[in-house]
Amino acid sequence: MSQEFFTKHRATLEQAIETTRRRDYWSPYPEIPSGKIYGESAAAVGQAAFESWLHKRFELQQPGTVAEIGDEVSPYGFALGVRYPQPDFDQLLPAMQAALPAWRDAGAEARAGVCLEILARLNKRSFELGQAVMHTTGQGFVMAFQAGATHAQDRGLEAIAYAYEAMSRIPPHSRWVKSQGKHDPLCMDKTFYVVPRGLALLIGVSTFPTWNGYPGLFASLVTGNPVVVKPHPAAVLPLALTVQVAQEVLAEAGFDPWLVALAPDSRAAPVTKELAQRPEIRLIDYTGGTAFGNWLEEHCRQAQLYTEKAGVNSVIIDSTDNLQGLVGNLAFSLSLYSGQMCTTPQNIYVPSGGIETDQGRLGCDELAQAIAEGITGLLADAERAAELLGAIQSEDTIRRTAEAAQLGEVVLASEPRAHPRFSDARVRTPLLLKVAAASSDCYDREWFGPIAFVVATESTDESIDRARGSALAHGAITWSVYAVEAAVLERTQRAALEAGVALSCNLTDGVYVNQSAAFSDFHATGANPAANACLCDVAFVANRFRVVQTRRHAA
Amino acid sequence: MSQEFFTKHRATLEQAIETTRRRDYWSPYPEIPSGKIYGESAAAVGQAAFESWLHKRFELQQPGTVAEIGDEVSPYGFALGVRYPQPDFDQLLPAMQAALPAWRDAGAEARAGVCLEILARLNKRSFELGQAVMHTTGQGFVMAFQAGATHAQDRGLEAIAYAYEAMSRIPPHSRWVKSQGKHDPLCMDKTFYVVPRGLALLIGVSTFPTWNGYPGLFASLVTGNPVVVKPHPAAVLPLALTVQVAQEVLAEAGFDPWLVALAPDSRAAPVTKELAQRPEIRLIDYTGGTAFGNWLEEHCRQAQLYTEKAGVNSVIIDSTDNLQGLVGNLAFSLSLYSGQMCTTPQNIYVPSGGIETDQGRLGCDELAQAIAEGITGLLADAERAAELLGAIQSEDTIRRTAEAAQLGEVVLASEPRAHPRFSDARVRTPLLLKVAAASSDCYDREWFGPIAFVVATESTDESIDRARGSALAHGAITWSVYAVEAAVLERTQRAALEAGVALSCNLTDGVYVNQSAAFSDFHATGANPAANACLCDVAFVANRFRVVQTRRHAA
Repeated sequence: MSQEFFTKHRATLEQAIETTRRRDYWSPYPEIPSGKIYGESAAAVGQAAFESWLHKRFELQQPGTVAEIGDEVSPYGFALGVRYPQPDFDQLLPAMQAALPAWRDAGAEARAGVCLEILARLNKRSFELGQAVMHTTGQGFVMAFQAGATHAQDRGLEAIAYAYEAMSRIPPHSRWVKSQGKHDPLCMDKTFYVVPRGLALLIGVSTFPTWNGYPGLFASLVTGNPVVVKPHPAAVLPLALTVQVAQEVLAEAGFDPWLVALAPDSRAAPVTKELAQRPEIRLIDYTGGTAFGNWLEEHCRQAQLYTEKAGVNSVIIDSTDNLQGLVGNLAFSLSLYSGQMCTTPQNIYVPSGGIETDQGRLGCDELAQAIAEGITGLLADAERAAELLGAIQSEDTIRRTAEAAQLGEVVLASEPRAHPRFSDARVRTPLLLKVAAASSDCYDREWFGPIAFVVATESTDESIDRARGSALAHGAITWSVYAVEAAVLERTQRAALEAGVALSCNLTDGVYVNQSAAFSDFHATGANPAANACLCDVAFVANRFRVVQTRRHAA
Repeated sequence: MSQEFFTKHRATLEQAIETTRRRDYWSPYPEIPSGKIYGESAAAVGQAAFESWLHKRFELQQPGTVAEIGDEVSPYGFALGVRYPQPDFDQLLPAMQAALPAWRDAGAEARAGVCLEILARLNKRSFELGQAVMHTTGQGFVMAFQAGATHAQDRGLEAIAYAYEAMSRIPPHSRWVKSQGKHDPLCMDKTFYVVPRGLALLIGVSTFPTWNGYPGLFASLVTGNPVVVKPHPAAVLPLALTVQVAQEVLAEAGFDPWLVALAPDSRAAPVTKELAQRPEIRLIDYTGGTAFGNWLEEHCRQAQLYTEKAGVNSVIIDSTDNLQGLVGNLAFSLSLYSGQMCTTPQNIYVPSGGIETDQGRLGCDELAQAIAEGITGLLADAERAAELLGAIQSEDTIRRTAEAAQLGEVVLASEPRAHPRFSDARVRTPLLLKVAAASSDCYDREWFGPIAFVVATESTDESIDRARGSALAHGAITWSVYAVEAAVLERTQRAALEAGVALSCNLTDGVYVNQSAAFSDFHATGANPAANACLCDVAFVANRFRVVQTRRHAA
């Protein structure tokens, strides 16, 4: 069966591998939530499927269940009421270890077949997953469908592609023949086995549980490692559905379904520290705050650790020949999902003397005002604003936004918004502040959420220096630069190389600095404190398996 | 110039990449120390070149020299008297960092060209390097020529091949075109830059300074990282010569020669801890004892760390259809370089009831005796014994061998031997002990040097279990098994997969378990405590560089 899955999805896999090398546009999972693509009833079926999970016990095929747990509340204002099975690790982990040899021995093709079938089935359930992501993360539905379902599937496939290629580089057998001059040659037959590290742990994040989770999940699984999925307690359902689909496919293919298992917890009684330090856990993928990421690095030395932590993203504005495009693009970037993305810009560095534009010279204050007006205009339509802003995932972010309003001159205040359909939704518009670069270092740390600073500097060179210093000290995942002169772009780019940050230049059209496209954009670099790894590259997969060889004299 | 070097060596590089995929026999660096290959005068020239360095100051092209240091003594009994430049790190490291951008910006082809030319020139100096390795490590000359010069060059080339391939996987540019239905497509031009981690540190080992050092040195250098070479104070010259050649080629190619620099120290005033914790150091390659390897893991979290530490290698003897071959092969393995290899077998597990052989049933004691006699016979000829045993690198090993003689029943005593040409050479024959498996755990730790144990077990299954437990607890790099039945080989092999150890089956001919051939044999697995990495695989190179991208709307 797993071989059938491999045959069925082989062309997709090969195309994925090829695209990671070309890095142009491709996706096998259509991102448009359209009935024409997914079937006319898909939206309704997905909505109903999502609702069918609410206020019930969620069943999974895994041993060691000793309790039920779950207290998710939609950022749109209602309790989900799903109760998930909570395992006893002393029962679950040995069962997962016992499942490992058959999964290891099945080989890379069989494992890839199973993983690709899981993704294909997840894709069919994209409307349901979109609802689950929307009502745990607060993303608007279209974004949840895209980032939470189809783009996450892309990122999962990308990881499988890298891992499959890396495993395929190892020949199963070789014959080694060394000439001995007049004597018979030495001949050895060698066999090479791909072996997994052990159990893998995925620690999910509340804002992008699938998009940030699938790369590690599938990279570990396809290389032979059973995966314990520990979701953020506020965003369990998207990963629980993922585990359910994975278990269904694994069982169909004749493997123990608990090769992928769920380990939910609560804020009140977190299990991540205990789990992450278990000696059975040999791989950990983590997305989340810096403090806990640092704790993992400090304490979980038995495991290979892949982290995406926090960062401070910068925009450097020197000049533009398309002011309207700049403003519209930035306004969108700052509004999208209320800034709750690890790629959202935070600090917008502008020379205090202003900038040259196609509409004449613009003062720093005028530019800040133009961006504020751009945001206001973008969010004028209630329906559009609701979809674009989504809801605020965490009360902490609400508090942080209120706190941040004290940090500088408020150019645009963050305000609550009524949602057209969810009366209790936690919606906030972006806060835009202005500060003088030298007056404070308040902006030189992450302010996660709908919080951005226009930072007035002496010059563009100071802007670049501050952005670089901030990235090296605190991490950064994205930079954006607006400049007309090639020399300024070049200087910014050299700083980006030193700071290890992906740079977008002069974005004025329908691509935003927040967006990172699978197969083409490397997400994070692993070269500054924001992340120790990249989604996705060879390094992300190559150390999830090892090679053990045998050799003997050839017959 | 570096492009010329790349063109000159391109075919070698391509062949190396291809061979790492096929894993059959290949080497561009002839291992036979023959005048027919290297030129009739090569041996004499190499000997003279080696002698020319003795009792002199060794010049290098690197800034910050503040002292001279060096107290190497040949294990063959004379002081080398070479004085090496010792740098002030506060001067050297910033100079190396300043050299980085030009090396980074030169690109993968230019860097590969330089690295391949360094190897080609090292190859031409193989006789000189062989002498330097012989008189620091104690290896016999032929072994020093092979393992210390040509095979080390192979391993360096192998690392360059993996790293070049990994960098080549990143396209320099791409155009990303995403259809927008009736609207114009979104078009982005993207550029991808390979960027190094920062400064790399190579911490050399006393027994195989080049063989174990070249993979990390060349993997770091070719991916853009300047390399600080910190040799073991007892084995500086082979790496000093390597740095000298690297600096010569770098300078010729127009780069700062101190992209590769030497940082020698002494046992009395070691600098490794200070150096390894410097924030500039972002990559560390280490071969050596477990305690210091663990210290590095604990304290050098700013760096990617690749370690090869100690292990306990096992031989599992169940039965054989070639007793003479078994005895001859094992006797050779135990004698070669007096067991001072990380691949030398230590524990030979034999059922106490004896084994079936082609010469009838043999008791455990009889087998131990046969191995002892095999060693005695092999070393009967003084000239052959001198070449095979080499000399003992460290006084610590002499002491350890004496101490070990108390641990069990002495089957063969370790004895000093006179060397035919070096009257003060530190030569010792192997010690072979016999212990009952359950009587003691004295054998279940590393006894580095000419020390081996015949461990009498209840059964082959116990032998396998003990070998596995030992590998998982203390690490192991090699296992060897002798068994006639396929089922026994299969059981051993499954244990080897779990223990993460390379397995050799029924070696009776001219291949020995100690030997690990570049391009074909993976040396260590990274899957047990003996090493966290493998020489060489994709994981060994892929995290030494990162990718930083820029993107902009296509014109």
